[in-house]
Parts: sequence; C-alpha cells; structure tokens
Amino acid sequence: MTVAVYPGRFDPVTNGHLDITQRAAAMFERVVVAVYDTRDAVFPIEERVKMFEEAVKDLPNVTVKPFHGLVVAFARQEKANVLVRGIRAFTDFEAEFDMALMNKKMAPELESVYMMASLEHLFVSGRRIREVASMGYDAGDLVPPHVGSALRRKFAR
Amino acid sequence: MTVAVYPGRFDPVTNGHLDITQRAAAMFERVVVAVYDTRDAVFPIEERVKMFEEAVKDLPNVTVKPFHGLVVAFARQEKANVLVRGIRAFTDFEAEFDMALMNKKMAPELESVYMMASLEHLFVSGRRIREVASMGYDAGDLVPPHVGSALRRKFAR
Amino acid sequence: MTVAVYPGRFDPVTNGHLDITQRAAAMFERVVVAVYDTRDAVFPIEERVKMFEEAVKDLPNVTVKPFHGLVVAFARQEKANVLVRGIRAFTDFEAEFDMALMNKKMAPELESVYMMASLEHLFVSGRRIREVASMGYDAGDLVPPHVGSALRRKFAR
Amino acid sequence: MTVAVYPGRFDPVTNGHLDITQRAAAMFERVVVAVYDTRDAVFPIEERVKMFEEAVKDLPNVTVKPFHGLVVAFARQEKANVLVRGIRAFTDFEAEFDMALMNKKMAPELESVYMMASLEHLFVSGRRIREVASMGYDAGDLVPPHVGSALRRKFAR
Amino acid sequence: MTVAVYPGRFDPVTNGHLDITQRAAAMFERVVVAVYDTRDAVFPIEERVKMFEEAVKDLPNVTVKPFHGLVVAFARQEKANVLVRGIRAFTDFEAEFDMALMNKKMAPELESVYMMASLEHLFVSGRRIREVASMGYDAGDLVPPHVGSALRRKFAR
Amino acid sequence: MTVAVYPGRFDPVTNGHLDITQRAAAMFERVVVAVYDTRDAVFPIEERVKMFEEAVKDLPNVTVKPFHGLVVAFARQEKANVLVRGIRAFTDFEAEFDMALMNKKMAPELESVYMMASLEHLFVSGRRIREVASMGYDAGDLVPPHVGSALRRKFAR
Repeated sequence: MTVAVYPGRFDPVTNGHLDITQRAAAMFERVVVAVYDTRDAVFPIEERVKMFEEAVKDLPNVTVKPFHGLVVAFARQEKANVLVRGIRAFTDFEAEFDMALMNKKMAPELESVYMMASLEHLFVSGRRIREVASMGYDAGDLVPPHVGSALRRKFAR
Repeated sequence: MTVAVYPGRFDPVTNGHLDITQRAAAMFERVVVAVYDTRDAVFPIEERVKMFEEAVKDLPNVTVKPFHGLVVAFARQEKANVLVRGIRAFTDFEAEFDMALMNKKMAPELESVYMMASLEHLFVSGRRIREVASMGYDAGDLVPPHVGSALRRKFAR
Repeated sequence: MTVAVYPGRFDPVTNGHLDITQRAAAMFERVVVAVYDTRDAVFPIEERVKMFEEAVKDLPNVTVKPFHGLVVAFARQEKANVLVRGIRAFTDFEAEFDMALMNKKMAPELESVYMMASLEHLFVSGRRIREVASMGYDAGDLVPPHVGSALRRKFAR
Repeated sequence: MTVAVYPGRFDPVTNGHLDITQRAAAMFERVVVAVYDTRDAVFPIEERVKMFEEAVKDLPNVTVKPFHGLVVAFARQEKANVLVRGIRAFTDFEAEFDMALMNKKMAPELESVYMMASLEHLFVSGRRIREVASMGYDAGDLVPPHVGSALRRKFAR
Repeated sequence: MTVAVYPGRFDPVTNGHLDITQRAAAMFERVVVAVYDTRDAVFPIEERVKMFEEAVKDLPNVTVKPFHGLVVAFARQEKANVLVRGIRAFTDFEAEFDMALMNKKMAPELESVYMMASLEHLFVSGRRIREVASMGYDAGDLVPPHVGSALRRKFAR
Repeated sequence: MTVAVYPGRFDPVTNGHLDITQRAAAMFERVVVAVYDTRDAVFPIEERVKMFEEAVKDLPNVTVKPFHGLVVAFARQEKANVLVRGIRAFTDFEAEFDMALMNKKMAPELESVYMMASLEHLFVSGRRIREVASMGYDAGDLVPPHVGSALRRKFAR
C-alpha cells in the first residue's frame, strides 16, 4: 500500500493546497496531510489542522495530523513511503532541490514526488494570502469558504 | 490501478533513467516506459527499446514501448493516469513547467509527477553521454553494462 | 507621442501575442507589430503579417509590418521610442536580459518595456503550438479562429 | 492620459531608482513615485519621501507620495493605469512574477510594466547600499549627492 | 604570490567548506579562511574559528582568522589578491552575482573566483546542518568529527 | 606551478574573453587559451587562434592553441591543473553546473574555477556579436581592433 505524506505549514490552507491533496488522494491509497507545528504562524496549530480537516472531509483516504521536528521522522512513524510536494514556481523548486537531497540522505527509503500547482493556483501561497488579507483584501475566492471567514475574523479591524 | 507512463528519448538509457524507473515501479502498479520514436537519434528506435527492456528485465511491472506523436495520446491509449518525469536540474525544470501546463490543457485527467535524479546521476543525461562517448570517453559506468558495449561499438574508430 | 514596436516571429500569432498587443495599445498611442522575416518559419512572412492584421483589425492604433535585420534599426525607422516584449517565463527572461543590454548599447534612445503574459497564456507559445498542431492536436482555442483554420490546413494529413 | 505608479521602499533612493523614474517619466504622462510606509526602514518615511522629491525636482511630471497597504489600492486612488517596476536581476524577477499575478487578480485594470536596470546600476539596491554604508564604505557615487550626505550622517561613528 | 581569502559564517564548518579550502590550498600559495564575526550565530566566533583551525591543521598554507565589516577591507589588510567563493546551487549563484559586482566596485584589484561544491556536498550547508541537528538528526558524517561532537553537545536535550 | 586552461570557441575573441584571460594571467603562472576546433564556426580555426594570439601578444605567460575532443584530455596533455571558465549570466551557469560535474567525473585532478564577466562585458558573447555583425551593426568597440576589422570584412556586403 502506498501511503503519502503531504507536509506544510498550511497557514492557512489554500485552494492550491486543497488541489494538490485531491490529486494525491486520487493517485495514492492513503494521504496524510502533515501540518507543521511552528510557533510563528498566524493561525495556531489546532486551528490549522481543523481548517484543513474541514476542507478534506469528503476525501475518505485523507487524514490531517500535526507534526513537529523532521518530516522524515514523521513519515517513518506513519509508515509512509512517499512524500508529496507541490511546486508553484522556480523559487519553490530551488528550495525543494536542496531539501530533497538532504531528505534522501536522512531517509533513503522515502520517495519524494513533486506535483505542479494548477494554473489558477500558481500565485496562491499561504504567505501571499496572509499578506494581502492583513492589508484588507478579501482573499475569499483563493481559499475554501470557511478559511475565508477565518481570515476575515483574524484581520478584522 | 495506477498506471504510469515514463516517456523519453532514451538515446541511450542511462543509469539515471533506470533509477527513476525502479523508483516509479516501487510506487505505481504498472509502469510503461515510452520511447519516443524520433528520427534524429543516434540509436534507432528498435535498439533503444531493446536496450531499455534488457535493463528492466527483472522488474515485472515495467514494460517498454515505442511511441510517436503526443505523449498524452499515448498515455490515453495505455489507460495511464500518471505521467512520470525525472528532473535533473534547473534547465530541465523550466522546460517541464511549460510542458506540464500544455499537457494539462490537452489531457486534464492525466496527472504529472516529478522525481528528482539521485545525487550520483545529477549530471548524467543521454545527450552528455553521447557527447563524451563520441569524443572517446568510456562512459561505461554511467550506463547499464550492455549499453556501455553498444556505445563502444557505435563510436569505435 | 509614444510609439511602441512589438517584435516577434509570430509563427503563428497566438492569443498570448494578441493579449500583449491589446494591452500595449491601451497604454501607448501607436503600436507597430513587427513580424520578423525569417526563412525557417512554418508560415511565410506574408501570411504571418496577414494573420496578425486580421487579429487586430479592431484596434485602430495598431499596424502590422514585416521587418528583417536588427530590430533597433526597424524601430528607428518607425520613429518608435519604446520596444514592447512579452515575457512568459524564466527562460524568456534570461534571453531578454542579454538582448536588452545589447539593444541599449546599439540604441540608447530606445526604451524596452516588458509585460508578463496573462495567466491563461503562460504556456502558449508559437513553438509549442506548431509542435502540438503538427502532431494532430487541435490548438484552436489557443489562437484566433482564423489562425486555428490555417493551422488545420497546414497540418492536415 | 497614462498615469504610472512606481512603488518601492526607497530606503534610500539610489541612482538606479532615479534612472527608472527618469525613463518612466519620458514614456508616461504622469509618474507617481509611491514610497512604502514600512516601520523597519533605516530612514523614516518623511525623509525617504523628501530625499526622492529632492532627486526628481527637475522632472515636472513626477510626484512623490507615501503609501501603506496594498499598492493596487493606492494605484486606484491615484487613478493610475500602469504600475512600473524596475528589474535588476533574476531574483527580482522571480518575486515579481508571483506578485504580478496576484496584482492582476486584485486589480485587472492595472497594467504592470517592467524596465531593466541600466548596466551601471545592475548591482545597486537600497539593501546593498545600507549594508555597505553601515560597514563604513562611502557609497556616495551610487546615490544622489544629498542621499550620500544623509548616509554619511546616519552611519557616522 | 597569490593570497586567497575564503570568507563565510562557518556556523559550523562543514565537509563542504573543508573541501573548498583543500582545493583552494592546492591552487593558491596562501589561503586565509575569514570567519565572519556575526552575533546571530549558533556557535560564538571563537569556537567557529577554533573548529575550522582544527579541521585544517594539516594544511600548512591555510590560516583561519575572524573578521567583521566589509570582506574587501579584510582582504586588503591581508594583502590578498583573490576572493574564493564556493557555490552550491543556483540560489547561491544569484546572491554571488550581485555581491561580486559590488565587491568589484569597492575593490577593483581583488579578483573573485568561484568553485563548485563537490557532488557529495551539494546539499550540505551550515544552515541545513543547524536545522536538522536542532531537530535531533545526527549530522555527524556531513561535518568533521570534532564538529559532530560540538553539534551533539549544542543540541543535546 | 599552476597551469590554467581557458577553453572556448572564441568565434571571434571578444573584449570579454580578453578580460578573463588577463585576469587569469594575473592569478596563475601559465594560461593556455584552448580554441575549440569545431566545423560550424564563422571563422576557421587557424584564424580564431591567430586573432586570439594577436590580442594577447603582450601577456608573456599566455599561449593559444587549437584543440578538439574532450577539454579534460587536452588539459591533461598540457599538464594543467586548473580549468578557467568565464560566466556571463544565469544561462551560462546552468550549463556550467552540469559540465563541471561531468568533468570532475572524467578528470578528478582538474580543478574548475569560474570568473564573472566584468560589468561592461556582461552582454558580450561571440554569438551575439556574430548575430549583430551579420545584420550590419559595427561591433567594433566590443572586440579587439583587429577582430573588428575581420568582422567587417567577413560581413561586408
């Protein structure tokens, strides 16, 4: 059985993240979305997990879990054999290249696969959405509806 | 069932191509290596197919087939749902980016996944091997043994 | 008066080229589309000019002309002060960077401005369209209608 | 009438910024330099605005204004139809690519145009100048004279 | 006599840094490793200098010194005519490009040369090692033995 | 003794090539300019060698020689321990990265060093010069004077 881990900060989950998850769920038997438990996030870890869970509630083979530490350690614990990464653009790829080689060194049995963002999500990142939302733009159509509401509450003045 | 197509010129198959094939074969149920039938190759299409077949003869879920025309049309014909691409470096990625978007437009149901070359194959491409072999370098340890012999015969003086 | 030259092979004109032309025409008083008279094109120069003219017939401040030789010489002859270039992706940009510096050296008075392709045209180039059309794909919705017909006639079997 | 907004931190204005402003002022009827009101700047917003104003006092169609929040909102308020961006190198371009697509989403009516830095300013950025000035290098010939004086006062020991 | 300065944070020195130093020492008559005295390092400057000294104790033409301020000023003080930089990947190169042009402006007599990381060190950076070591991974085989011990002590829990 | 080989097509030698040669000659004891004997050049190999020799006649530690086949084989034959490469921009670097790793595989004892083009030569390549010269532009100030004459004769109409 192929178990894939899809790690990220997901601060918050965007339509781009959701798209990658759906595509991975169609390809692999089980997908574990791994939400990185970092302190400098806008949304606390519990809320980031809950928002992603709500977004994938119709995908039976997807689960969402928080993690901290090395993603390869988390993947081992989940008995995953695949690491899924979404690529949006060149800058992303450069960082991935480095990390892929380090991950391979740390966990040779874990296979990394990359999926490109769909055209309509090429410019949609958590960071960009936090940025424009904090400046008063309603990014509601770039994220799932309940995340749009959360962004509005978070940055309401 | 997940059927993956791994297309390329494979002129000739290298250890890097073989590595991607083995890794894809561990992840997907069936892998079809698709050898592009182009006229300007050093090795004729039959020989390129045969050399790849010899290299994967121990992988029961891998088959090797020639194709011409659009890779998305070949993938449909093989009822594949995944397209596997190996990425060696930045230049590769740039070309992939463009092609991925065009392929998505032509066949939205076909998922493209990217796998990075292993460290030891980062610089191994069919083109580079043809180039140095034609100048008298024995590239025998960068390709499967029978391909090394074929290169020696081809470029013997 | 700001006169802009928009040079290219336009073999054939795509919806992406058309989009850049429309946006330039909204910004500058006159736009001269300059079709490069190169011999290794799929469509002869007269046909490329005519296809572009048909596509912009509703834009009163746009004219289409063939040129050969240096684009900076053509721009001088047209009394243009701006050179418009569409950028689709990174590879494009790299080539532009070099050329921009050379053009500046040859014609310091000519200002180059760059406009990014719209999202839906990011992967649409003349080369890609010729390629897939020659393999039997109907690229009709990536080009103006009359260009779609021309492609079908050109690559009919 | 074409009104262009040229946004940036301008902390401080360099000869490179000035060059882009002059070239934009020759191409568009009105240019509004928009100085981003960010707190983590070395020079306070009033001083950054004043230094840029001093540098462009001979350009009648250029005005300098502070702004905060989304640049597209500021552009709308100024009734601008063009956003001017200077590109110095590849890293710049990567960030621009992302932002351009997001800006287009937020303000489809606003056209972004890119101008490349002149050869002699390719390596001149506000960040680099702050960095070397803070380490005691006199960057006086990379900025307008009055900015050179301000840098000397700021980093005097 | 050619004297080369090899500057960096070296927080801590890795096998990749050591490899560049050895290769530079084989090419130039004297190599001065210049450890940048920055406050936000994990290891204090004295310890970073000492760890590098220990790693190169068998290379008679290499010395290790701390520095702060501009690297070109330090190079002048050491009467160096060459600046050695290791390049690991594309992102590195982009930053180098900018800095090289600025350094040339500040010290035209100082020649910068670039050496590429060996294949096995392509993914080994001080930052990556600090990151994975802080998460509990033993990076002992990516750094000299005594640095491995120092990392274990630093991040022991 | 450090012997450096500086290989290229040099079709024709430009001021950029000359600049790299001078800088290498100041750093290494002997520099061998290696002119690649390729058939598809505009200037025949003898002329390319002679033009480069004329350009470096005042540099006593520089010699110019034709070569064909693998550059690493030529370097061995010259007992060189260093390979010098000029880098003009990103595209250059990408190709170098691949080649460097292959060269290291073929000749581990040969050290590759990279030098960046000076600012004023960033856009000057043999290819660009042939291109604009063939279109009637006098590229005389981008190449040594005698090469300018040769270009004028070659492309005279």
